Amino acid sequence: MNYPMIRYILFQVMRIEGILMLLPCAVSVFYGDGEGLTYAIIASILIIAGFIGCKFVPKNQTIYVKEGFAATGFTWILMSIVGCLPFVFSGEIPSFTDALFETVSGFTTTGASILSNVEGLSHTALFWRSFTHWIGGMGVLVFLLAIIPMSGGSNINLMKAESPGPSVGKLVPRIRRTAFILYAIYLVMTIIETIFLLCGGLNLFDSLCIAFGTAGTGGFAVRNDSFMSYGPAIRWIVSVFMLLFAVNFNAYYYVLLKEIKKAITMEEVRTFFLIVLAAIAVVFVSILDMYANAFDALTDAVFQIGTVVSTTGFGSADFDLWPTAAKFTLCFMMFMGACAGSTGGGIKVSRMVLLFKTIRQELASMIHPKMVRRITLDKRVVDDEVIRSTNAFLATYAGIFLISMFLVSFNGYDLTTTFTSVLATLNNIGPGLALVGPTCNYGFFSVFSKYVLIFDMLAGRLELFPILIIFNPSIYKK
Amino acid sequence: MNYPMIRYILFQVMRIEGILMLLPCAVSVFYGDGEGLTYAIIASILIIAGFIGCKFVPKNQTIYVKEGFAATGFTWILMSIVGCLPFVFSGEIPSFTDALFETVSGFTTTGASILSNVEGLSHTALFWRSFTHWIGGMGVLVFLLAIIPMSGGSNINLMKAESPGPSVGKLVPRIRRTAFILYAIYLVMTIIETIFLLCGGLNLFDSLCIAFGTAGTGGFAVRNDSFMSYGPAIRWIVSVFMLLFAVNFNAYYYVLLKEIKKAITMEEVRTFFLIVLAAIAVVFVSILDMYANAFDALTDAVFQIGTVVSTTGFGSADFDLWPTAAKFTLCFMMFMGACAGSTGGGIKVSRMVLLFKTIRQELASMIHPKMVRRITLDKRVVDDEVIRSTNAFLATYAGIFLISMFLVSFNGYDLTTTFTSVLATLNNIGPGLALVGPTCNYGFFSVFSKYVLIFDMLAGRLELFPILIIFNPSIYKK
Repeated sequence: MNYPMIRYILFQVMRIEGILMLLPCAVSVFYGDGEGLTYAIIASILIIAGFIGCKFVPKNQTIYVKEGFAATGFTWILMSIVGCLPFVFSGEIPSFTDALFETVSGFTTTGASILSNVEGLSHTALFWRSFTHWIGGMGVLVFLLAIIPMSGGSNINLMKAESPGPSVGKLVPRIRRTAFILYAIYLVMTIIETIFLLCGGLNLFDSLCIAFGTAGTGGFAVRNDSFMSYGPAIRWIVSVFMLLFAVNFNAYYYVLLKEIKKAITMEEVRTFFLIVLAAIAVVFVSILDMYANAFDALTDAVFQIGTVVSTTGFGSADFDLWPTAAKFTLCFMMFMGACAGSTGGGIKVSRMVLLFKTIRQELASMIHPKMVRRITLDKRVVDDEVIRSTNAFLATYAGIFLISMFLVSFNGYDLTTTFTSVLATLNNIGPGLALVGPTCNYGFFSVFSKYVLIFDMLAGRLELFPILIIFNPSIYKK
Repeated sequence: MNYPMIRYILFQVMRIEGILMLLPCAVSVFYGDGEGLTYAIIASILIIAGFIGCKFVPKNQTIYVKEGFAATGFTWILMSIVGCLPFVFSGEIPSFTDALFETVSGFTTTGASILSNVEGLSHTALFWRSFTHWIGGMGVLVFLLAIIPMSGGSNINLMKAESPGPSVGKLVPRIRRTAFILYAIYLVMTIIETIFLLCGGLNLFDSLCIAFGTAGTGGFAVRNDSFMSYGPAIRWIVSVFMLLFAVNFNAYYYVLLKEIKKAITMEEVRTFFLIVLAAIAVVFVSILDMYANAFDALTDAVFQIGTVVSTTGFGSADFDLWPTAAKFTLCFMMFMGACAGSTGGGIKVSRMVLLFKTIRQELASMIHPKMVRRITLDKRVVDDEVIRSTNAFLATYAGIFLISMFLVSFNGYDLTTTFTSVLATLNNIGPGLALVGPTCNYGFFSVFSKYVLIFDMLAGRLELFPILIIFNPSIYKK
C-alpha cells in the first residue's frame, strides 16, 4: 500500500478542516459568545500540523482502488475525531463518545443527535454542528480534489470511494474539474436556499444552518422541536430543496449545459420522482383524517417523505403516531434513500432500479433460457461488474444491518427501537421510530451501542467498503 | 408452452391427492366421528376425474424450465383449493378463505393457523390438517416423480421447481430413483420419530400428527397451547427431529452409502450446526434468569431455536416476552431458515454461505484487483449462474417482502405484527411476534390480508419463481 500518499492525504484533510474551523470562530466573534477561542486553538494546531505534514510530498502519488478506499476510511475517522474536539474542550458536550457521535452524525449527514436541548448550545457550536453536514454532504475528499492539484492520475479512486452510488461518472474528463463543478453546483444551490429561507422570514443564522442541513441532507436543526414550530412557507421551501439535493447532481450538470432533455430523461431521476409522488399520495391519504384540513396534511406528507427519502431527517410531525401504512411507507423510503451522485444516503434509487431489472432478467431467462438479455440503464448496457458489485453491496448492507441489530439488541430496548436506530444510522437519516422517534434523541444508548451506531453512520455514508477495508488485515501486508 | 403436459400433471396430482385423502377417511372410521363421508365423496370425485384425465397421455412429455415452474405453481394452487374443500363442506372451517389459508399453511408447511380452538376439530380434520404438512414437506411433484414413470427426460425441471435450495443435486443419475430415495428417507425418519413419541408417552394419533408436523417442518399441533403443556422428554425428541429434518437430505444419502465423512464435511451442514449452536447459546444466556433452573431454560432455548430455524413453528414458550437479544436471534434464524434440500423454509443456509462468500470476494477484489478468485462450496467451484440466481432470489425475496408488508400494513395493525406476519408466512414458519405471536392466531386479519399471506406462503415454499412465473403474461404467448 502507498502509505506516504495516505499520510499526505490525511495531512491535507487536517489542514482543510483547520481552515474550515475558522468559520465558527468568525461566528463566535459576531455573537460574542466567547466559545471561539477553543475552536481557534484547535484550528491553529490543525493548520500548522497540516502545513508541516504536507511539505513532504510523496514521489509516487498513484492511488489504486485499495488506497482510495483505505484513504477515504481513514480520512473520515480522523476528520470525525478531530472535529469533535471543540465540543469536548469547550465543555458543551463533555463526553468524548457523545461528542464523537454528534460529529460523526454531522459529517455523515445522519442528523441523529444525543442532545436533548439543542437550543442550549452556543451559536458557535450550533454553526459548527450544522456546517459539518455541509462538509460531509459532498465530501471532504471531493473538496480536496477540487482545490489541490494532484498528479498520479488515479485520483478517480478517491472520488469513487467517497461518492455515493454504484458507478461514479466523470462529468468531464478531468477529475479536478469534475470535483470543482460538483462543489460549485452545491454551493450555489445552498446559497439559493439560504436566500429563500431569509425571504421566508428566518434570520441569517437559522437560514444558513438549515440550508447546510438541507444541502448535506443532514437533519440537524437549530430548535429543540426541529421543524414542528415552523410555518408552512418554511416547510415547503425546505421540502423542495430536500428533494432537489436528493437528485443525482449529473442532472444539474446537464441543465448547466442546457441539455434539459438529457436531465429529465435520466432513468434514475424519473424513477425517483415517480416513487416520491406515489409515496406522498399513500401517506397523504392515510393521514388525511388526522388533520383539520387537507393542506396541512399535504404539507406534512410532502415534508416527511422529502425528509426520509433524501435521508435528511428534519422532524415536522411525530410520524411515530401515524397509521402503519404511512409508517411502513416512510420505512421503505428510508431503505431506498436518494439518487446516486446526490448528497443523500440509503441504498440509492439506481441500485433499486438495477435490482428490479435483475429480477426481471431472471424471470425472463427462465421463460426464454436461450435469449441473451443485457441489463441497461439510460439505454446503455450496464457492466456485469457493476451488477455484481451492486449485489455484493446489498449482501454486505444486509450483513452489517443484522450484526448491528444483534449488537444493539443487547441494550435491551424494544425491537422497533433497535431496528429503526440501526436503519436510521446506517442510512444516514437521523430519527427512527419508538424511542428514537422524531421527538426523541439517541442519548440513552449505552456507550457500546453508540460506537456500533457510529460505525453504522460511517459505513452508511461511505457505502460500506471503505470502512470495512481498513479492518481487513490483508491490506497491511506487503 | 406444453399445455397438454401441464394438464396431464395436474390430473395426476388430483388423483394422488384423492388417494391420500382416503387416509383421513380411515381415521374417521376408526374414531367414528362421522366426518369421513365428506372426505370420501371429495376423494372419489378427485380419483375419478384424475383417472379420466390421465387417460390422455401427451405425446410430447418434454418439460422445459418454463413448464417445470408453471406446472409447479399451478399444482400447488390446485392442490390447496382442492385440499381445503373437506374443511368447507364438513363445516369445520366454513369460510372458504379461512379454509384455504389453513390448507395452504398446511401444504406449504407454514403452520400459521386461523383457528383459535384447534381441540374443537374432529380427529379426521386434525389428521388431514397435519397430513398436509407431510405431503407438502417433501413435495407432491417429487412424490409423483417417484411413483409415476414419465418419459421426456427433462423431469429434473419439475424437481428443481419444487425442491428448496439454490441448486438441486441429483443423488443418482435417474430422477425417479432420486425422488424415491428422498421419499424413503423421509418416510423412515417420520416412522422413527413416531416411535420415539410413542415411547415418550403420547398416543398413536398425537404421535403421528406431531411427527407429520415435524417431518414437513410444518408446525400444526393438536393442542390449543401447541407444545406448552408437553413435558421435557417430548420437547427434546421433537427438538432433535426438527433439527434433523432441517438438514440437507443429501447428508442422509451419504450416510446410507456409509460415506459418513462426506456427510459431516458438507459445508452447509457444518455451518448450519455452528450457527444453531451459537444461537442456542445466545438465547440460553439471555433467558436464563427468567427460569427457575438452567435445564428448563436450555430445553426452551433448544426447542425454540429448533422450531424457528427449521421453520416448523411449534410453540413451547411465549418468546414474545423474551428479551430483545433473544427475539432478534429468533428473527434472524427465521430469515435464514434451514438447509437447502431439506423440508424447511427460509432463505436457506447455503444461500447465506454463498452471500458471505460473495462479500468476501468483493472485498478481496478491491484489495487485489488483478487476482481472479472463484467462489467455492464443498471445494467445488460454484457456477456463476448459481451466484447470479442466488442474488436474484434475494432481490426478489426482498421485493415480495416489502410489497407484502405494504399491502398488509393497510390492515392497520402495529409494525411488529405486520412485519412478523409477512416474515412468518414468507419463510413458512407460522408464529411471529406481537398479535401473531406463539399464543395467537391469524384469524383476525382482513380477507385481503389473508390472500396476501396465502400468496406469501406459496411463494416462500416454492422459492418465489414458480408462483411469480404464472402471473407473467409472456409465458402464455405462442
